[in-house]
Amino acid sequence: MYELFIHLDAHKKSALYEQIYESIKNDIVDGKLTCGEKLPSTRLLAAHLSISRSTVETAYGQLVSEGYIEARKGSGYYVCDIGQLYGTGGLSKSGARHQAQDTQAMEISMETQMKIQMKNPIKIPPQMQPQPDCDVKIDFFPGRIDAKAFPYQVWRKVNKEALLELEYESLEAGHPQGEYRLRKAIAGYLYRARGVRCVPEQIVVGAGNESLLQLLSQMLSGPRVAVMESPTYLQAYHTFCNMGYRVKAVPMDDGGIRVEEIPLEDASLVYVMPSHQFPFGSVMPFKRRRQLLAWAKEREGRYIIEDDHDSEFRYVGKPIPSLHSMEKQGRVIYLGTFSNSIMPSIRVSYLALPPELLRVYFEKCGFYSPTVSRSLQSAVCKFMEGGYFERHLNKMRRVYKGKHDELLRLLKGKPWVERIYGGRAGLHIGVEMKSASSEEEIMARAKKRGVRVQGMSGYYIEGRRAPGDRPILLLGFGNLTVEQIREGVAVLEECVR
Amino acid sequence: MYELFIHLDAHKKSALYEQIYESIKNDIVDGKLTCGEKLPSTRLLAAHLSISRSTVETAYGQLVSEGYIEARKGSGYYVCDIGQLYGTGGLSKSGARHQAQDTQAMEISMETQMKIQMKNPIKIPPQMQPQPDCDVKIDFFPGRIDAKAFPYQVWRKVNKEALLELEYESLEAGHPQGEYRLRKAIAGYLYRARGVRCVPEQIVVGAGNESLLQLLSQMLSGPRVAVMESPTYLQAYHTFCNMGYRVKAVPMDDGGIRVEEIPLEDASLVYVMPSHQFPFGSVMPFKRRRQLLAWAKEREGRYIIEDDHDSEFRYVGKPIPSLHSMEKQGRVIYLGTFSNSIMPSIRVSYLALPPELLRVYFEKCGFYSPTVSRSLQSAVCKFMEGGYFERHLNKMRRVYKGKHDELLRLLKGKPWVERIYGGRAGLHIGVEMKSASSEEEIMARAKKRGVRVQGMSGYYIEGRRAPGDRPILLLGFGNLTVEQIREGVAVLEECVR
Repeated sequence: MYELFIHLDAHKKSALYEQIYESIKNDIVDGKLTCGEKLPSTRLLAAHLSISRSTVETAYGQLVSEGYIEARKGSGYYVCDIGQLYGTGGLSKSGARHQAQDTQAMEISMETQMKIQMKNPIKIPPQMQPQPDCDVKIDFFPGRIDAKAFPYQVWRKVNKEALLELEYESLEAGHPQGEYRLRKAIAGYLYRARGVRCVPEQIVVGAGNESLLQLLSQMLSGPRVAVMESPTYLQAYHTFCNMGYRVKAVPMDDGGIRVEEIPLEDASLVYVMPSHQFPFGSVMPFKRRRQLLAWAKEREGRYIIEDDHDSEFRYVGKPIPSLHSMEKQGRVIYLGTFSNSIMPSIRVSYLALPPELLRVYFEKCGFYSPTVSRSLQSAVCKFMEGGYFERHLNKMRRVYKGKHDELLRLLKGKPWVERIYGGRAGLHIGVEMKSASSEEEIMARAKKRGVRVQGMSGYYIEGRRAPGDRPILLLGFGNLTVEQIREGVAVLEECVR
Repeated sequence: MYELFIHLDAHKKSALYEQIYESIKNDIVDGKLTCGEKLPSTRLLAAHLSISRSTVETAYGQLVSEGYIEARKGSGYYVCDIGQLYGTGGLSKSGARHQAQDTQAMEISMETQMKIQMKNPIKIPPQMQPQPDCDVKIDFFPGRIDAKAFPYQVWRKVNKEALLELEYESLEAGHPQGEYRLRKAIAGYLYRARGVRCVPEQIVVGAGNESLLQLLSQMLSGPRVAVMESPTYLQAYHTFCNMGYRVKAVPMDDGGIRVEEIPLEDASLVYVMPSHQFPFGSVMPFKRRRQLLAWAKEREGRYIIEDDHDSEFRYVGKPIPSLHSMEKQGRVIYLGTFSNSIMPSIRVSYLALPPELLRVYFEKCGFYSPTVSRSLQSAVCKFMEGGYFERHLNKMRRVYKGKHDELLRLLKGKPWVERIYGGRAGLHIGVEMKSASSEEEIMARAKKRGVRVQGMSGYYIEGRRAPGDRPILLLGFGNLTVEQIREGVAVLEECVR
C-alpha cells in the first residue's frame, strides 16, 4: 500500500481537505502513485492524520471527480491511469509553471488572432453600424437615427419603473413570444398605425430582425428558395443564405420587385419592403402589391415577408397601409423593428405571424426562451402604453422632415443631380448623379474631405450594376444637423465633378 | 375627361389634399373613374378648386404611391387598373365598414387560433420555464434560482448607471460580438473561475444559449451530425434539429458520454456538459475528458461544445477546471450563461470561440448585429467590474449549499431512496427510488398534493428509459425555502409508496 506522507499545515490558507487532495494529486502526477495502486481507506487515513473522516472523504471525492482515483465497490479507492495528462498542459502541479503557460497561451492566442485578422480583414457589410472614424466629420451613412432628439429622460424613467417592478417571478425567462402585455401594445400600435390586424397571440418579439428571420427560417417548410429584390437589405440576404436558403435576386423597377419574374415553380418565400424599399426607397404601388399577393395565394405554403422598413417616417401624404392589411388569407408575415423608431442598440423587433404559421411556431420553435430581457420588454411596454412612443414618432417625423426637406431643397435644380430616389419617407435618399466619375471615385474623394457616403453598388446581391449606369449615392440624414447636411452636399458637389 | 366633382370642406378635420385624395380614390374604387382615364392636370384642378397647386400635387402623389393612378411622362396622370381590389378587403371607402371588417377579422383570427390551440395543445418541453400554477405550493422544477436572494438593489444601481451613460454613440447597435469591455470582463472571469484562456476578441455575447447555438450551427461546416448524451438538455437538442443537424444520442454512464460509442465516421460535433451534466448531474472524470479531447483531435474540423452548465455552484471540493482549460488545439467551444448566475430573464450567454472558428465567425456571421441591448451589456459589465458578480456567486453558493445539504440530509438513509445523482453541485439533484410506481404515477400523486416534480424520463432524446428502470425524480431546490424542501420531501415520501 501507498506510503502516506502527507504534511498538513493548520496555518496554511488552504483547507485541510485541500492539502490532502493536493498532496495525493501531486504524488499521482509525479508518478509516485501509479495506476491501479490502492489508497488507504478514509478511516485509516483519518486516523493516521488525526483528522475527521469526512475531511478525507471530501479530498477523495474531489480526486474521484477529477478522475485521479476511482472508487471500486466494496473494495476501496484506486489510482486511475492518468497517462499523458501533462502533455495537455491542462493541469500542472506548480502554480508558477501554470502561470507561465497561461501567459504564453494568451500571447499565442492573441498573435494567432492578429494573424487571422491580417489575412482576412473583417468584411463588414456597408449596412452595418458605422465604425467610429475620427476623420469623418459628416457621415451620410443610411439608417442612423437622430441621437440628439432621443427622449433620454423618458427612456430612463420607463426603464427605472421596469427595474423597480423586477421581482420574484419576473426573474424567470418568461414567455417564448415575449411578455403578453408588450405584445398587446405592439398589436394595438400595428393596427392603428399600419392597419395590421392581429391579436397579441400572433406577435413574436425577438432580438432584432435577423434573429426573427432565423426563427422564421426554422419554421418555413417547402423549397429552400427565397426571392429578394436586388439591391436589397443585405443582412436579410446573408441570414437566408446562412439558414440554407438559395436566394434568387429578382430584378426590380420603380415599383419594387417585378412579380412576373419570380420563378414560379420553386420559390415559396418572397422578402420585400413595400413601404420604403431599402436602399431605393421606392413605395410598392397598389397594383404591384395585388400582383404579389396573387402570387402568394396561387399555391399552398407561399409566404411574403413584409419588412415594414421605415414605415414610421413618411413626410408627404398619408401613411400607406401595410401589405399585411390588404389580405386575409394569412400569406403575409409582418416584420417590424424598434431600431429606427426607438434606437438601434435596443435590439427589439417583432413578427406578426399568420395563424397557420403560429401553429408551426408552437410545434417547432415553442421551446425557445425569449431573446429579449424581460426588464427591457417591460420598459418598451411602458414606453408604448404611456403614449411616449407615438409622441416620440410624431416628434421625430417633424425632426426628420426638416432635414429631409432641406436636403431635397439643396439638391433641387443642381445640374449634377439626375434623379432623386426614395424621397418622401425614411432616413435616407438616393441621388443619381450626372458624372463621369464612378461611385467609388466620388466616395473616395468625399472621404478625403471628411464626408462618408455609401454607393448604391454596395447593396446588390449578385454582381454589380451595369457598368454604364450612373453613380447613385445614398444620403442618410437621420443623425446630421441641417448645417452638416449643407456642408456635406457642398463637398459632394465638388467631388462629383 | 373626368368630370370633377370634388367637394372641399375647410371645416373638416382632414387636410385639403386628403379630401382630394379620398374623393378621387372613392371614384376609382366605385368605378366612376375607370382604368386609363386621364385626370385633370394639377394646374387645372388647382385653378378649378381655387387651391394651391402643391396641395393637388400632394394628393396625386399619394394616389400614385398607392397605385391608384400613374404619371405618364409629359402626358399627365391616368387611372390604373385596380381590378378586384375590393375582394381583398384591404382598402374600403367607408370607415364604418372598415371597422366592422376589422372586428370580424380579429374575431376570426382569435377563433382560428383557439381552434389551433385546441387541436394542437402547445407542447412545452419540461425544461422550459414553469408556467405559473396556482395549485402548486412546492415546485421542484430544476434550474430555478433563488429569487429572494437576488441582489435587487445592486442590479438596479448598475442598470441605472448604464442608462445614465446612454448617449449619442451608444444608441447605435454596437459591436456584433458585444461590447469589448463586457467581453473583457467575461474573459477575465472565465480565466479566474474556469481556467478558460481566451482574449476578449474570442468572446461572442448573445441572447441565450440557444441563440448562440444557432449562430454556431451557421458557422460549423462538415457533416451535419451532432452527438449528444441522452438524457440531455433538450433545448439544445431541438435547436440542433431545427438547424438541420441529425442528432445522434450516445449512451452515457456515470462519467457522462461514452466516447467509444461516438460514431467515428460522420460526427464532427459533440455537445457535453462536463461540469455538471444535465439532468444527471454527473461530473466528467479526467480520463473521459482526455478521451473526448483525443476524439476531437483525431480529425480536422471536429469540435466539442462545452456547455459549462452549473459550474458556478459547486458545494463540495474545489471547482473542477473546464474541459476548455485542458487543451490548446482549439477543439473546444466554451458556452456559458448568466441565466443561473444572474437570472434567467436576463437572456445573456457567451461563447469563447477557438481562433480557427473566429475566422469563420467573421466571414459568415460578422454581419449580424448583436442580440443583447447595449444598455444591458453595459449593466452586466458594471456588475462584473464592480466585483458584485463574484460576490453574488459566493453568496449564492452558500445559500444553495444550505438547501442542497438539507435536501441530502433529508434523503439520507430513507429506505425508498436507492441512489442520489448529481449531488455536490448545481441547483437540482436526481433521486432514484425503490418504488413499484412509475415516475408518472409518483408525479401525478405529488401534483395532487401541490408538489410539482419532474421525472428523468422527460429528458431523453429517443424513446424512454428501459421499462424496468426505477423511477428517478429531479428535485430542483434553487427557489425553495428549507421549510418547503422539508415539506416537499415529506409529501414525496408518501407518494412513493
